[in-house]
Formats: sequence, structure tokens, C-alpha cells
Amino acid sequence: MPQPRVVVDALGGDYGPAVVVEGAVLASREFGVGVSLVGPERALRDELARHGAAGSVEVVDAPESVGMGEKVTLSTIRKRSSIQVALERVRDGKADAFFSAGNTAACWTIAKTVLGTLEEVDRPALAAVVPNRGGRTVLLDVGANAEVRPEHLRQFAVMGQVFASEVVGLHDPQVGLLSIGEEATKGTPAVIEAHKLLSEDPAINFFGNVEGYDIMARVVDVIVTDGFSGNVALKVTEGTARVILTEIRNAVTGSWRAKVGALIM
Amino acid sequence: MPQPRVVVDALGGDYGPAVVVEGAVLASREFGVGVSLVGPERALRDELARHGAAGSVEVVDAPESVGMGEKVTLSTIRKRSSIQVALERVRDGKADAFFSAGNTAACWTIAKTVLGTLEEVDRPALAAVVPNRGGRTVLLDVGANAEVRPEHLRQFAVMGQVFASEVVGLHDPQVGLLSIGEEATKGTPAVIEAHKLLSEDPAINFFGNVEGYDIMARVVDVIVTDGFSGNVALKVTEGTARVILTEIRNAVTGSWRAKVGALIM
Repeated sequence: MPQPRVVVDALGGDYGPAVVVEGAVLASREFGVGVSLVGPERALRDELARHGAAGSVEVVDAPESVGMGEKVTLSTIRKRSSIQVALERVRDGKADAFFSAGNTAACWTIAKTVLGTLEEVDRPALAAVVPNRGGRTVLLDVGANAEVRPEHLRQFAVMGQVFASEVVGLHDPQVGLLSIGEEATKGTPAVIEAHKLLSEDPAINFFGNVEGYDIMARVVDVIVTDGFSGNVALKVTEGTARVILTEIRNAVTGSWRAKVGALIM
Repeated sequence: MPQPRVVVDALGGDYGPAVVVEGAVLASREFGVGVSLVGPERALRDELARHGAAGSVEVVDAPESVGMGEKVTLSTIRKRSSIQVALERVRDGKADAFFSAGNTAACWTIAKTVLGTLEEVDRPALAAVVPNRGGRTVLLDVGANAEVRPEHLRQFAVMGQVFASEVVGLHDPQVGLLSIGEEATKGTPAVIEAHKLLSEDPAINFFGNVEGYDIMARVVDVIVTDGFSGNVALKVTEGTARVILTEIRNAVTGSWRAKVGALIM
């Protein structure tokens, strides 16, 4: 098997190309993957030289960029942006995977235009790999499709199961459907209908409904939901974890301060 | 102003009447509120006697009960359950508030039947008071209405604002609409339409859209959403907090064990 090659949008993220280039160099050295950086060639070559990696990482020039807050329109899709140029390399077989820290809506739309979807998949979904008690759960959709039909949820289940098994490396992954109760009769009409579709599909290793509690509790390997609830759920885990860890850090710092104060007195 | 009186369904919860009766006695003693316990009279009087509170808490007999897992049907509404009898006392002016740890769907349905809703409110919502960074946020709906129309979200905003101000005691509460982006154009069609209704209603102190991150971050005082997303969000905060605190406890216990081990050796 030839070395896999990852094509990287060098322009995405909050810290410009510097952080992405450094990450690409590290990935190339540590994991032995081929990396192609896409963006303004001159700037990328300068960054690579700073890391002594001028020869080890390929650079592909893309003259234009998509802003992080840019609203995706036809002109977004038409320009020779780093996202566009990078995805064309996947389409043309010059790369096996695409990475971007950039504008999610632009990545989603351009990927759908340039690569299309698998047969029998109507809509791509965004999947997040959420850490749980000692493992990982694949949660999808986390924001690409705010509203979905039951059939979309069935397709997400199939895609999530394959992704969990082949990419995340989870053995014989089991799929749960996010709802507001364990019973098959709980949830919106679309969720209730999706429960039926998932139960009846022999290709899906279906566990049944799961609830918000279960996302981090390692009940199932894959959790399927619409892009609205999935986005809310993902951001709630992040927000809750951040507040709890900040409060604990403050409490610990406070108790150390008290101890240091006691020593000084 | 006469002493407020709370009517309590003595049968709800995971631990039978014992815990509810003990709580009612404590509330009666500590907060000086009048409490009426509703349930099987004989059993409740025995429990009260165990706490030396036979005279201080009123007992109202209700011969029947609603099971925690009971599916709510017409016969649920028709029986003389503790929920039914308790809510009738609110309707008849014999109590100012109702408390139950029992079957939520039964409470919701019987309350809607016995008490009705306020004028201009089509559907009751379930509100949760979520702790945040140094304060509290009112989140509604957390599960009564899996699907809602934009107008329902507007009504929830008004009810949430009044509840936050008058019951939770938050000063001049501000309302956020849960969505998957800050912009007014983000979310499902119903959420986008609700953003417009909330913006235009002079009775609502509207902040704009909030995201899952913001529930525990004290960005707004009231967060409005449909009962599906709200239920998921609430349970995700609980599940995330539980997993993080368990992991930290295990880590701390582990480090203490290591220290004790070092001392013994």
C-alpha cells in the first residue's frame, strides 16, 4: 500500500497558516504521512523553511481564500480558494484525505460540489468524535443539516457505523438514535419514524434510542441525530466541561493560595 | 399576605412516600410554608408520626396513584390519583403551588386538564433551572413539546422571562433563543421565524441567538428552545458533569492511594 497523502487547507483556523503549517510538519514527521499544503505558495514556503521542512512537505498554490465568517454563495464555490484546490486533489486521486480548520459551511458545500456524495447518500453529515468514559463516541450530524427526514437519519446511521469501524477503529460498533426517552414512541414524529427504519435495516447494528446522558457514558459507539440537536449536544458537552474544569481549577488555586497564606503567617 | 401553601404529591419519586414526607416536614419547619401532603391517608399519618410532625402538616387522602412508568391515557386522567387530587386543590384556591416528583407526563396532562393554561398560552412548557457560572439559567422547554411552532417559542419566552423574574428572582432577565449559530439566519426554519417574533415583541427582553456553549456560561438568564433540543441539552449537561466529576474523583482517589502507598512503604 502506498503512503497515504493528506491534503491540507493551510488557510483555515484562528491563527492563520503558521499553526497549520507547524501541524503539517509535525504530522509528516511523526506519523509518516504525505502532506500537501494548499494556499499562497510564497508564504507557505517561507513558513516551511522556518521549520527546516522545505523539502518534506509538498506545496500547492491557491491564489484565493474563503473567510472564516464568509457567507457561502455561488462566488465562494467559484473562486480558486485553498479549499477548492485542495478538494480537487482528492477528486483527482492526488490525495486520500482532506483536512481544513476553515469555514465549515464552505468546506461542506465545496466538498459536495467537487466530490459529490456516495450513491444512496442524499446529504453529507458532520461527524464529531466525542471522548467518553474511557473511549470515543461518534456523534453525527453535528450541524450540517438543521432539519432532516427519517431516511437521512438512516443514511447517517450507515455512514456513522462505517466511519466508527473503519476510521475510528471501534470494533463492531453499535448505533443509538438520540431521543428524549428510551421507548420507541418517544421523540418527534421524524425520530419515531427513524427508529422504525433503523430497527428494520439489517445493515445497521441498532441499539435503540439513547438520551443526552448517554453521549459521554459509553452506552453506544455511534449516536445519530439531526444537525440542530447534534450541534447543541456537542456544544453543551464543551460548555459544561469548560465551566466545571474552570471552577475546579479556581477552587484548587484558592485552596493552594490558602495553604501558602497559612505557611507565610 | 397569608402564609403560602404548597400541595405535595406524596407518591412520586424513586423512594416512595418516605422521602417526600421527610422533605415536606423539613420544608414546613425551615421555610415556614404550609404543606398539604396528598396520598394514602393512613400511610402518610404513620410517616408524619415518625417525624413527630403529626399536627404540623395537613394530610389529604387520595385513594389511587399513577405509576412512574405508566403510559398516560384517559384512565390516568380519570382516576382519583394523588396528582389529580393535589391539582384540584390548586384549582379550588386551597393551595398556591403544586409539587410532585412523580410521572412527568401525567403531571403535565392532568395540570393542563384541571388548571388549563393562561390566556394566550397554547401549551405549557417544562422549565429547568440550570446552575451556571455563579448563577442560574432558566431553560425551557425541556421535554413537554417535542415539536413546536415559532409562536410557541415566543410564548415560552414570555413565560420564561416572568418565571425567571418572579420565581427565580433574577433581575431584569434577558432571553436567548437556542440555535446553532449567533446569526439570525442560523437554525431550522421554525427557529429563524421565532428569532423574528422574539425580536419584534416589545414584551420580550431579547438578547438574540445563543448556542449550546452558553447554557452554563451565564450569557443570558432564560434560554428558549423546543422540548426535544431542550431535553437533550439538559441531559447532556447532567451526563457530562457526572462523567467529568467521576473521572476526577477516581484520579484524586488514585493519587491519594499512591501517597498512602508511599507512606506505608
